[in-house]
Amino acid sequence: MADDKALTPRSEDFAAWYNEVVLRAELADYSPVRGSMVIRPWGYAIWENMQRALDDMFKATGHENAYFPLLIPMSFIEKEKEHVEGFKPELAVVTHAGGKELDEPLVVRPTSETVIMAMYAKWIQSYRDLPLLLNQWANVMRWELRTRLFLRTAEFLWQEGHTVHATAEEAEEHTRRMLGVYRTFMEEWMAMPPVTGLKSESEKFAGAVRSYSCEAMMQDNKALQAGTSHFLGQNFSKQFELRFQSEAGTEEYAWNTSWGVSTRLVGGLVMTHGDDQGIVCPPRLAPVQVIVVPIWRNDDQRQAVVDKAEAVRAALAERGLRVRVDAREHVTPGAKYYEWERKGVPLRIEIGPKDLEKGQLALAKRVRGEDEPRKEFLPEAEALATVAERLEAFQSELLERARARREANSHRGVTSIDEIAEIMDAGGGYVYTGWSGDPAVEQAVKERTKATLRCIPGEEFRSGTAPARCVGGEKDAVMEVVWARAY
Amino acid sequence: MADDKALTPRSEDFAAWYNEVVLRAELADYSPVRGSMVIRPWGYAIWENMQRALDDMFKATGHENAYFPLLIPMSFIEKEKEHVEGFKPELAVVTHAGGKELDEPLVVRPTSETVIMAMYAKWIQSYRDLPLLLNQWANVMRWELRTRLFLRTAEFLWQEGHTVHATAEEAEEHTRRMLGVYRTFMEEWMAMPPVTGLKSESEKFAGAVRSYSCEAMMQDNKALQAGTSHFLGQNFSKQFELRFQSEAGTEEYAWNTSWGVSTRLVGGLVMTHGDDQGIVCPPRLAPVQVIVVPIWRNDDQRQAVVDKAEAVRAALAERGLRVRVDAREHVTPGAKYYEWERKGVPLRIEIGPKDLEKGQLALAKRVRGEDEPRKEFLPEAEALATVAERLEAFQSELLERARARREANSHRGVTSIDEIAEIMDAGGGYVYTGWSGDPAVEQAVKERTKATLRCIPGEEFRSGTAPARCVGGEKDAVMEVVWARAY
Repeated sequence: MADDKALTPRSEDFAAWYNEVVLRAELADYSPVRGSMVIRPWGYAIWENMQRALDDMFKATGHENAYFPLLIPMSFIEKEKEHVEGFKPELAVVTHAGGKELDEPLVVRPTSETVIMAMYAKWIQSYRDLPLLLNQWANVMRWELRTRLFLRTAEFLWQEGHTVHATAEEAEEHTRRMLGVYRTFMEEWMAMPPVTGLKSESEKFAGAVRSYSCEAMMQDNKALQAGTSHFLGQNFSKQFELRFQSEAGTEEYAWNTSWGVSTRLVGGLVMTHGDDQGIVCPPRLAPVQVIVVPIWRNDDQRQAVVDKAEAVRAALAERGLRVRVDAREHVTPGAKYYEWERKGVPLRIEIGPKDLEKGQLALAKRVRGEDEPRKEFLPEAEALATVAERLEAFQSELLERARARREANSHRGVTSIDEIAEIMDAGGGYVYTGWSGDPAVEQAVKERTKATLRCIPGEEFRSGTAPARCVGGEKDAVMEVVWARAY
Repeated sequence: MADDKALTPRSEDFAAWYNEVVLRAELADYSPVRGSMVIRPWGYAIWENMQRALDDMFKATGHENAYFPLLIPMSFIEKEKEHVEGFKPELAVVTHAGGKELDEPLVVRPTSETVIMAMYAKWIQSYRDLPLLLNQWANVMRWELRTRLFLRTAEFLWQEGHTVHATAEEAEEHTRRMLGVYRTFMEEWMAMPPVTGLKSESEKFAGAVRSYSCEAMMQDNKALQAGTSHFLGQNFSKQFELRFQSEAGTEEYAWNTSWGVSTRLVGGLVMTHGDDQGIVCPPRLAPVQVIVVPIWRNDDQRQAVVDKAEAVRAALAERGLRVRVDAREHVTPGAKYYEWERKGVPLRIEIGPKDLEKGQLALAKRVRGEDEPRKEFLPEAEALATVAERLEAFQSELLERARARREANSHRGVTSIDEIAEIMDAGGGYVYTGWSGDPAVEQAVKERTKATLRCIPGEEFRSGTAPARCVGGEKDAVMEVVWARAY
């Protein structure tokens, strides 16, 4: 379906642009079920590529996959006090099944700590069974009032890692290791460089001792919490009697972590790289890395350019690239360009009769630097030989561009809540300040500026000089923190 | 956890053997949620390998993946009359969410025809949008009263393909194409050769015009319906207004297919190849194809054999094989053999100090022919060079063995219900007879023999001579059919 209407520009209405681009790049669609979306093939293919990369990273760090039940007894969710307080308002509940009312309502999992801990308690006896490092790819359900495609939907797809360790130190280390895996994935695959750090008490996961997060800056300068990793301490193991015999022969409660990323990442990808023409797929995640468009004016020309397009496709596929030929007859070349740009394909190769004659290919990059030509004409052999490195270069450019944008919109050395408010009203961004750790200050910033405490950044993100004063003004700072408006 | 108790032999109690082997090979476990199981890492790894193979086959036949909502409005399920009759007794229903009672109950999908058709109706306008070939990997829920691990659980994992075509012929052809994909997968990957054919009216999918199935014979001679492919006609497209403009300019209802296989396949794998020592993984699906066990008596020996084991692993991994070294210190070699046999690893390589001296490896196949030695001692280089072909040979042996067993337990030319009953009581199997198409005969066979009409077999499975008389005795046969007791 050709759809030639331009997108609302990002500068005019970022939220409207986002919805339009998600729908018109055919990443997702609204469903007849309130709050649930349909992930269309193009969006799902991006998610599949994300899954594959993450799954490989999880396996390389010693994890195996498993699958636990969708439905969880209400009594399980209620066992961990903070956990149930956090999730109860968002639960979807099965009360009837098989034509009868159930004795105990079953909750559609909002997350699986409880049922997984119950199984772990059955499987683990000794320190020899530890660490236990499992991951689950699954759908989860959190009944949200205001939903947005990919960013906040009642049902979403995610992975949730759940690990068991013999010591607090090892669990804490694993929590941070997985935060690092997420950061690496976001940088190297998504070209979306997050700031990582510790959540404040008020923002941590319901039931965790400490939560860490990846905070990625979107093009509207708002933060997207794109992945979290939690040190759960013994909170769940005590409720579910997850004990093991230690090497010394004593009976101990185990230490847990959990961590997850979701289809929200697809939304993050859109808001990190998309432009007024559509989404932009980083080559490593693009379902199609190269689209080949043969151009003809009459049937005589058609066969020759389509044959060449097919040969180019085969040659690039041979090199391990994901390539498609768009030889549709009822769509003009211009409409094809427009469609594949909207879908974010990193590189387009055009082949017309003149290119055939000259033995050349025309290459068009999805996003060009200011000094780059609209198209490059290259001898065929040179084009084929350099496509892979061009894609790698494009991947790096996207990361550098996103990092430069993040840093250009990061404000360090800010010392007052007024100043945070000014920055937020002037376009937002990340604001680094000192903080005493006083929740009242956190609350005051939030009320005054609508920015929340995104994280206490890890060492590599901290300003050179530690801030002396808390942004609340009255106390000494004991740490540096990052504030931003957020999704 | 070493567990040295022998399994109940298959010959003694096949059902008990099945449950024990599934639990003790750590494929799955019972969960605290009625009717739902936990798929443990070993079982999930087999499922992942199945998924990858099937997904590649779906993509090679032009399909893309997508994801549709878990929860479906009750009114959707009720639209197609036969569909709701078939599924209503098994529905799990969400009545409350976000702390409130819902206006309309939502059903946890038992299958997704309805919600998918509703989306297709939105996306499809013209014959140019056809065919639409999508697949979904998802969890589904059917509230079963009597559940069995993998074979029949309230929640299970599956894939469901849903396609849209412009003509009945094309949809029918696609239905059969996907049946063929399933058959190829079961034969080439699972080494489980099914009989494929058409379901009778009484056994077809609720809402289909015609259903085809793969019927695999288990070692207790019962049939397992292992995959189905349905020609839905226009039944759903009429209920969901799925229309398109034809090339001739007319408005037409589209034609649909749907088809699925599930985690039930893992149960089929167990019951096809397992023996009294445990499960047997066909090499192409085995999570670990080769287990390397170093053997030592003292610490001096340990380092050398573990180093060699690691070198062997690396050399085989280099060849693209899935290999693991079991160098655990607190487990005896015998216990390791026993454990990996139970888990069905196709090939074991043992390396002791004497093997090191002689530059040899000891190879033990998971299942041996009668004339094969318990172990083969081979020079290291020869062993490494031939492991891949040994695994391929083992894969073929499993298929041949299963096919021979199926044929040995297939009874052709049977002409009376009494004879079916005798065969069923004498150990069962597949019974081929003539059938007039009269449902009363189908019912009579079922009541008398507990065998059901598994399918009207495809051409390649039919007996050389078409049966003249219906097994019911009174009428002429118009087709040949296969009867068996079934899971």
